[in-house]
Amino acid sequence: MTSTATVRVAIVGSTGYGGVELIRLLQAHPQVEITSVISSSSAGVPISDGFPHLTNIIKRDLDGVEPAEIAKVADVVFAATPSGVSAKLVPDLLNAGLKVIDLSGDFRLKDGSVYEQWYKHPAPSAELLEQAVYGLCEVFGEEVKDVDFISNPGCYPTATLLGLIPAIQAGWIDPASLIIDAKSGVSGSGRGTSLTAHYAEINENFKAYKVNKHQHIPEVEQVLTRVTGEPVTVTFTTHLVPMTRGIMTTMYATLKGSYTEDDFIELYREHFQGRPFVRIRDKGIWPATKEVSGSNYCDIGFAVDSRTNRVTIISVIDNVVKGAAGQAIQNLNLMMGWEESLGLTFTPIYP
Amino acid sequence: MTSTATVRVAIVGSTGYGGVELIRLLQAHPQVEITSVISSSSAGVPISDGFPHLTNIIKRDLDGVEPAEIAKVADVVFAATPSGVSAKLVPDLLNAGLKVIDLSGDFRLKDGSVYEQWYKHPAPSAELLEQAVYGLCEVFGEEVKDVDFISNPGCYPTATLLGLIPAIQAGWIDPASLIIDAKSGVSGSGRGTSLTAHYAEINENFKAYKVNKHQHIPEVEQVLTRVTGEPVTVTFTTHLVPMTRGIMTTMYATLKGSYTEDDFIELYREHFQGRPFVRIRDKGIWPATKEVSGSNYCDIGFAVDSRTNRVTIISVIDNVVKGAAGQAIQNLNLMMGWEESLGLTFTPIYP
Amino acid sequence: MTSTATVRVAIVGSTGYGGVELIRLLQAHPQVEITSVISSSSAGVPISDGFPHLTNIIKRDLDGVEPAEIAKVADVVFAATPSGVSAKLVPDLLNAGLKVIDLSGDFRLKDGSVYEQWYKHPAPSAELLEQAVYGLCEVFGEEVKDVDFISNPGCYPTATLLGLIPAIQAGWIDPASLIIDAKSGVSGSGRGTSLTAHYAEINENFKAYKVNKHQHIPEVEQVLTRVTGEPVTVTFTTHLVPMTRGIMTTMYATLKGSYTEDDFIELYREHFQGRPFVRIRDKGIWPATKEVSGSNYCDIGFAVDSRTNRVTIISVIDNVVKGAAGQAIQNLNLMMGWEESLGLTFTPIYP
Amino acid sequence: MTSTATVRVAIVGSTGYGGVELIRLLQAHPQVEITSVISSSSAGVPISDGFPHLTNIIKRDLDGVEPAEIAKVADVVFAATPSGVSAKLVPDLLNAGLKVIDLSGDFRLKDGSVYEQWYKHPAPSAELLEQAVYGLCEVFGEEVKDVDFISNPGCYPTATLLGLIPAIQAGWIDPASLIIDAKSGVSGSGRGTSLTAHYAEINENFKAYKVNKHQHIPEVEQVLTRVTGEPVTVTFTTHLVPMTRGIMTTMYATLKGSYTEDDFIELYREHFQGRPFVRIRDKGIWPATKEVSGSNYCDIGFAVDSRTNRVTIISVIDNVVKGAAGQAIQNLNLMMGWEESLGLTFTPIYP
Repeated sequence: MTSTATVRVAIVGSTGYGGVELIRLLQAHPQVEITSVISSSSAGVPISDGFPHLTNIIKRDLDGVEPAEIAKVADVVFAATPSGVSAKLVPDLLNAGLKVIDLSGDFRLKDGSVYEQWYKHPAPSAELLEQAVYGLCEVFGEEVKDVDFISNPGCYPTATLLGLIPAIQAGWIDPASLIIDAKSGVSGSGRGTSLTAHYAEINENFKAYKVNKHQHIPEVEQVLTRVTGEPVTVTFTTHLVPMTRGIMTTMYATLKGSYTEDDFIELYREHFQGRPFVRIRDKGIWPATKEVSGSNYCDIGFAVDSRTNRVTIISVIDNVVKGAAGQAIQNLNLMMGWEESLGLTFTPIYP
Repeated sequence: MTSTATVRVAIVGSTGYGGVELIRLLQAHPQVEITSVISSSSAGVPISDGFPHLTNIIKRDLDGVEPAEIAKVADVVFAATPSGVSAKLVPDLLNAGLKVIDLSGDFRLKDGSVYEQWYKHPAPSAELLEQAVYGLCEVFGEEVKDVDFISNPGCYPTATLLGLIPAIQAGWIDPASLIIDAKSGVSGSGRGTSLTAHYAEINENFKAYKVNKHQHIPEVEQVLTRVTGEPVTVTFTTHLVPMTRGIMTTMYATLKGSYTEDDFIELYREHFQGRPFVRIRDKGIWPATKEVSGSNYCDIGFAVDSRTNRVTIISVIDNVVKGAAGQAIQNLNLMMGWEESLGLTFTPIYP
Repeated sequence: MTSTATVRVAIVGSTGYGGVELIRLLQAHPQVEITSVISSSSAGVPISDGFPHLTNIIKRDLDGVEPAEIAKVADVVFAATPSGVSAKLVPDLLNAGLKVIDLSGDFRLKDGSVYEQWYKHPAPSAELLEQAVYGLCEVFGEEVKDVDFISNPGCYPTATLLGLIPAIQAGWIDPASLIIDAKSGVSGSGRGTSLTAHYAEINENFKAYKVNKHQHIPEVEQVLTRVTGEPVTVTFTTHLVPMTRGIMTTMYATLKGSYTEDDFIELYREHFQGRPFVRIRDKGIWPATKEVSGSNYCDIGFAVDSRTNRVTIISVIDNVVKGAAGQAIQNLNLMMGWEESLGLTFTPIYP
Repeated sequence: MTSTATVRVAIVGSTGYGGVELIRLLQAHPQVEITSVISSSSAGVPISDGFPHLTNIIKRDLDGVEPAEIAKVADVVFAATPSGVSAKLVPDLLNAGLKVIDLSGDFRLKDGSVYEQWYKHPAPSAELLEQAVYGLCEVFGEEVKDVDFISNPGCYPTATLLGLIPAIQAGWIDPASLIIDAKSGVSGSGRGTSLTAHYAEINENFKAYKVNKHQHIPEVEQVLTRVTGEPVTVTFTTHLVPMTRGIMTTMYATLKGSYTEDDFIELYREHFQGRPFVRIRDKGIWPATKEVSGSNYCDIGFAVDSRTNRVTIISVIDNVVKGAAGQAIQNLNLMMGWEESLGLTFTPIYP
């Protein structure tokens, strides 16, 4: 496989929001051909039955989950499957000779016991946890080149880590002081039906959930610990916003010196120099979720409060794109040695 | 100018929703270069000041409205200006040698007195009204090839006419019986501030407005009259839906014979054969606005009620795309002799 | 039981939206005491577990569905149960000596075969269908006084019938021409979970459903047939609006004479003279759903189109109040001989 | 005036959201008669012209702002006027012999220089700032009895202070550690039109604004300083949620000892014993804004994180009720010596 050939791609979990967004984005990717859309629950049915917006675009029936069959038609598989399912499926996909980009949380934590504590499932094998490369593109993008197995970051961790890492690596903020107040649209919890996704329960409502208990907390802590070289523990609250797409993380940290907003802006712009998908806002301008909607951008803004010696860092992404399908494709690009932004240069949809 | 060269494009009215959507779509068009974004009210200011989602995408300052200057840098101008403004501006743009695609309502009606009755402005000159080619692509697309001046259809008329014309041309429905119940998202009324666009007044609210008085009514009637060869008058109600994008027109007509849903589906599929942006739904499936969101599709479904001898035709579009910027680019494509769908093959965004 | 005593009330189906709205409204009713809140699925659990907004307001556990037990503590039962369930439950409630106000569709149609055709369940017994008094308060309110068993009208029929009956009784409009384009918020389909109630599927979406097939169609036709004395068949489309509460019906009819908007306003104001919950809007003003939200009002406006000789009648209600719990309490008031508006004089919530 | 007589009330600013909510609530108050609804901008026009939901409920025309005239018909005035306007109006109302409950921010800060720093207007006179009693009912309710002039707290401070004061008074949390992440619906910014209130800009969008700069910050700090006896400075971020009503404040503080969630629940329940409008949630249950919508409740929940030694306190109110009109009426009740909850025992509207 050379970097200019078309890559054949299969998508497991095509009937979820992550899977169907992969389809939308990959349809527009110049070097990808979708050769199989797969769903364990709806095999044999045209995908447009459940997603009429794909009428005339994908005329294909959904395939079943058969690793050997997938390997006949695809080079790379995106596993957009729920946590617990990926853990069981990925070994077979790898064994069938496929490259795998997994969008679930199953392979993000290196320590199986931490996984089991937060996810309440049995962890995958230690070797697989070791093998999986954590694909936070703007931070660890060098590591995914040419690998066979990428674990795609979670939506909250993506917004959080891109917002914190430059300051934390520069030693400007105290890791022990980190408080992360996160807000997400409803699509983050998937297409499954439940009372907590019922329109009448969500609309005109703002609620907190899993306070201090969200399974993305150890993922954030693992990366911050790796980056700082010392154990980092964060306070992390997740909220549900009455909207479909978008995540904002509002992050608070105590300053370890006397830094201004201009300092932060300069630091971050230098840090993310050459990375097309991180945009640092001008002084006094904070990003809003709609300003990245439908796109792979992560936008970041700052407020320094000299009264309390704290910085407030605000980071936004589209959870379905940069927080899932978009970053997964960005990882594919890096894995293949292609331009990082190939097929991802969408302008956000506004309004 | 040959059909394979890149066309230089300027957009007047870049700070409105139609203008900014033209930017989004033209950014992805393979044969277009945006050379000027223009706003009479904000000239000299970076466009991303008012539209932060364009940060790092369009770094250009807004230009003023100077036809001679525009003609130096552009071949084609999209006028995404309010009705009344286009009427004054377009003659100068044409005189400067530019090709013009006008998105306002100013040049859609051939009869200036009808224009004045419904729009309450003075009409443009009769010659210009005559010169303007009405660019309803799937119906009159042949007529826009190589012309200099296209009047882009309104959002309601686009959804309505695509939904009615096959049946009316086939003589299956009685033009005197037409009742059109139309619903639109809020973006249709533009970015101007008013109490009727205030979030708290729109959210959790569904309202009718301009009942029998909407300025798109004569546009629909003019085309239906042209198509049938006899005067057609319609009952037309417009409603505002608490959503940003999307139009549905639910249309009622008395059958002139004994036609089934299958008959309608077959008729429409044949009628729109080869037109990439009209999708006729299967029996018993009606389109929803989200299924075309962000895309240039018009989706149509049918219900025949043998009890009342009426057909209900349901047509949906994204008012900002197929109802404005998308169809305008489709017209550019046809004007240039390009593939109709060039740069417009977006998959709808779902969810 | 005299008209000034407090009436003891039980609510079956307290964990649905209709039931919980009965609780909200009855809490404020000066002559009612809620003595039992009942749910077959959650008996034994505090009602505030599933509805935290009731914390400290209703401290009661949910009771099971035991007619004999209910009869010990209550005089009147509201059955806010799904269609199919009421059919089985109501006979036992009546036999236990309770007065019953049923909010389901099970007892609204007088002809069991029509019920079975539209509801796809076996119909209740002919005697019960006969016994049930159809409680459309402003039309048949005289008939519910002192009866034991009231069938509360459906949400769509309430908005539709109040909007049509004065004109149809006056002979001003042609019953054969009736086209009803109805729109509802999501709460109308209840608290049950399903993909069609999923926030991400509803938000920013407008869709049609059950076109010509909604089970409220025969209810409308039955009443119009009774009122006109001749069979009436209507064209009726139902749509789902991305909002929680509210119904609008936009109704079209051909005029049988030369009537103006002023004529309609005068006719309707006279017709509904003394009825506190119907408000006829001034000329050129059409009601919006938010203007009746949380209240028991039905607001009606008109547009006459002399070009097409049709009238457009627009009627709005809050589907959970006037379309369900509010009208049920209005029926209780009439049944008891109380003031029709007792406990129901809420100002709509705006915004 | 005795405590059982009906009080005559006038509302200045009746065409804003605070004013119209006062009307809704006071309509249902058993000891209040609304004798004048006042608007400087719309005097002479029926109030239902701008607020059709009041059709047939308030048939009154809007009066102009004439203190002497108001004093002829009213005992108490609610000033629901913008900041800057109240500062000029209230002295005249007091001089005319009226009791005043002011809902603006003009009289909340005791130090005029702090007011001018945050509000950017000239401060009212020092005597008036001194005279105004800050009506945070559950904290300073004893102080408003029999006074003539009450300054009603801001929406963010109400949610914040009720959530913090018991813990801070008990010495359980470190005042220097306070971080408040606040979220509000759009109605909080009033009915004025602006791009930031435009539906298409708000819908499907979550944004931060006035980070560290909101004028409610000094109000929170003033009260916390008063309560603790030492200067308190807070980090405070305000966000806009795509919903109409509701505020949540998510508050973070470092524990000064080893307290559990159960400890917090017990502390707060004791603290607010006998106060009808504060509801402390059970362990592991956090309140959502919809659960207080339309009501005067403030609901509070807790999460203690032993890993970081911090507590997260979550407090919700309806910003238009407990954050404005409802608390103002609660203040009226206390001022009059009535039951605190008189006329305010609304069940929240759900869904």
